Amino acid sequence: MNYPNGQRKPLTIKPKQTSFSRRGMTLEEEINETTDFYRIQGQAVIHKKPTPVQIVNVHYPRRSAAVITEAYFKQASTTDYNGIYKGKYIDFEAKETKNKTSFPLANIHEHQVHHMQQVIKHGGISFIILRFRAYEETYLFDAKDLFVCWQEQFDGGKKSISYNHVKQLGHPVPFHYQKKVDFLSVVDKLYL
Amino acid sequence: MNYPNGQRKPLTIKPKQTSFSRRGMTLEEEINETTDFYRIQGQAVIHKKPTPVQIVNVHYPRRSAAVITEAYFKQASTTDYNGIYKGKYIDFEAKETKNKTSFPLANIHEHQVHHMQQVIKHGGISFIILRFRAYEETYLFDAKDLFVCWQEQFDGGKKSISYNHVKQLGHPVPFHYQKKVDFLSVVDKLYL
Ligand SMILES: [Mg+2]
Ligand SMILES: [Mg+2]
Repeated sequence: MNYPNGQRKPLTIKPKQTSFSRRGMTLEEEINETTDFYRIQGQAVIHKKPTPVQIVNVHYPRRSAAVITEAYFKQASTTDYNGIYKGKYIDFEAKETKNKTSFPLANIHEHQVHHMQQVIKHGGISFIILRFRAYEETYLFDAKDLFVCWQEQFDGGKKSISYNHVKQLGHPVPFHYQKKVDFLSVVDKLYL
Repeated sequence: MNYPNGQRKPLTIKPKQTSFSRRGMTLEEEINETTDFYRIQGQAVIHKKPTPVQIVNVHYPRRSAAVITEAYFKQASTTDYNGIYKGKYIDFEAKETKNKTSFPLANIHEHQVHHMQQVIKHGGISFIILRFRAYEETYLFDAKDLFVCWQEQFDGGKKSISYNHVKQLGHPVPFHYQKKVDFLSVVDKLYL
């Protein structure tokens, strides 16, 4: 397109997005990328579990793949991720919040807490990875600390974990280009 | 209903199905029931992973739950089951065959074998549970024995594991009323 004075409109040059930008990536996507990297490096075998779906109707076309035509989301009975690291069973849930002052406990389901309790009882490692999006801060919060907050809400306590509490008891998860949520570096210090 | 001679039709009494009948249960259903029982007993925390599904379209009706209206089955990148037992990471695949003489290796995918190899490398316990439906026999077959058969098929060997080979190297999995596929009793002897 030519402008009145004969000049072409200059190409708008987008600000170069640094390759380690987090723009648009959810916590889950970043963790998936990290666990892929751990696996490729032979550091750990940790996978995200598939989203549980109740399949009601499947259509089988003649010459192509089966199509699920009716299904519903089911509530997960466990956590998001599990696997093995240095011979240890690892099991965790990932959650992000836009909330600036606290993490609402309503985001965690009772059966997930129960599951994490069982994991600990059987000798596994369990925690949640919490991200406060307002601050771009990500914390590993140990399951046992979660259990305390969880119980307190029934004993007249708060229905959320305050940001300050997470900052105090949680462990910041470092960011690296290929390990955007490098939780194993925290696991090393904390549990091994 | 009254019959001509005035007698009522006698109630047909179904043959009493013994409560430990396997009638109509798939291997997967039996294992799910078993792992539920293990969990309730506090013996182990092992879950079947949800079927991986690629969700393409979701409809959000005004007042009811979201409906997935188009989705496709994805190939699993790992195995069917994993969890923790006596502090150890456990990971296995369940397969049944109607074949009387062998288990076709085509039933197992390369990335599943690769996954099991990684699990072993990281210090976990891994195996397949194989059922020959013709004989109602169920075996635990160690991952390392599977790897040998798997490799042999590429070195001019057979594309299946013969029933005799499974019988020789595998370990029969006992059946109990509440633990229809009591694989942990085999795990105890074999790995712990
Ligand atoms: Mg989550
Ligand atoms: Mg299977």
